[in-house]
Amino acid sequence: MPTAVEFWFEFASSYSYPAALRIQAAADRAGVAIAYRPFLLGPIFREQGYESSPFVQYPAKGRYMWRDLERICAIHGIAFRKPSSFPRTSVLGARLVAAYADEEWVPGFVRALYRANFESDRDIDDAAVVRECLAASVADADARIAAAQAEPLKQRLRDNTTRAAALGLFGAPSFRVGDARSGYELFWGNDRLDEALAWALGRHALQR
Amino acid sequence: MPTAVEFWFEFASSYSYPAALRIQAAADRAGVAIAYRPFLLGPIFREQGYESSPFVQYPAKGRYMWRDLERICAIHGIAFRKPSSFPRTSVLGARLVAAYADEEWVPGFVRALYRANFESDRDIDDAAVVRECLAASVADADARIAAAQAEPLKQRLRDNTTRAAALGLFGAPSFRVGDARSGYELFWGNDRLDEALAWALGRHALQR
Repeated sequence: MPTAVEFWFEFASSYSYPAALRIQAAADRAGVAIAYRPFLLGPIFREQGYESSPFVQYPAKGRYMWRDLERICAIHGIAFRKPSSFPRTSVLGARLVAAYADEEWVPGFVRALYRANFESDRDIDDAAVVRECLAASVADADARIAAAQAEPLKQRLRDNTTRAAALGLFGAPSFRVGDARSGYELFWGNDRLDEALAWALGRHALQR
Repeated sequence: MPTAVEFWFEFASSYSYPAALRIQAAADRAGVAIAYRPFLLGPIFREQGYESSPFVQYPAKGRYMWRDLERICAIHGIAFRKPSSFPRTSVLGARLVAAYADEEWVPGFVRALYRANFESDRDIDDAAVVRECLAASVADADARIAAAQAEPLKQRLRDNTTRAAALGLFGAPSFRVGDARSGYELFWGNDRLDEALAWALGRHALQR
């Protein structure tokens, strides 16, 4: 049984969009389990000394990113429209996934919320948008939303973000393979999805 | 005849190393010409507000980069040793390539100087190291070194750096396909080498 791959993502993150849309199907094909790990980039960026998203702070990098993302989505056949507001996160969406990470509706909900932002240009910080995406997957959306916003479940997103910093994550999407005991690998960026899956299967050129 | 791909690189740039070692063979196989465009990242980074290399300014990003580079080199069968000093540039090497970009010794010299830094941990800012790499490729190394450090040839590296900023480049390696008249595409990062070559051949998912 191959080790699971942790998928660390933030709903605001542009390059997380194609990764989020592709990862479950790619992992199913490879026979690798995915552990969904939403976190917030804001505290991570602030700790590193960024004042905003690098794509906002460095405009040339931001201009490039939007064109690159357009090309990447075309390659993978993913619908894409540049959001009219960026970065646009969803704390509620991230709390829901952090609270219920192992439930089977999570992959579909993650895809739906990313598509709301990067395909349909909807405000994913609006609770009504989140509820709509969730209600498409589960019967008791309102109960889960209420529980995810209250302790003890609310704490899980904060824990994820603290853990992301401790693991050395600095951006999203990131993939983590392995564990602290026997050593782990980090892979950063949508470009590294296939490599992370290959690493989980032991198919890699470099032995530790 | 496909359009040439401009290869924008900086000798200090870590991710430019695997790109520099791979690009000529990949381009030859694809039937695409490469235009070598060395530039200096220092002025570009300063203009964007960085205080140093992003890999120095953001330590988590730097730690990740070295491990990622090790994995990339293993995948491509490229020898790699982490340099004892980073970033380590070669203004003389960049001046030589900018001055003589179209001469046939350039691809071999570029590879030799990158290997000196990232395989052999040698100080590529040392004129003796540059001379040794150049002398392996041309008979009149000393004459070219003298000419590259005097006007009018010396100006060419400055011109390249000014042009890199004007084109919207913000890092290295970068690849540019097309021209200002009919539109051009930028591709940033060693990961994008194959995509840039495919674009030059008209094999891409997205039409402008």
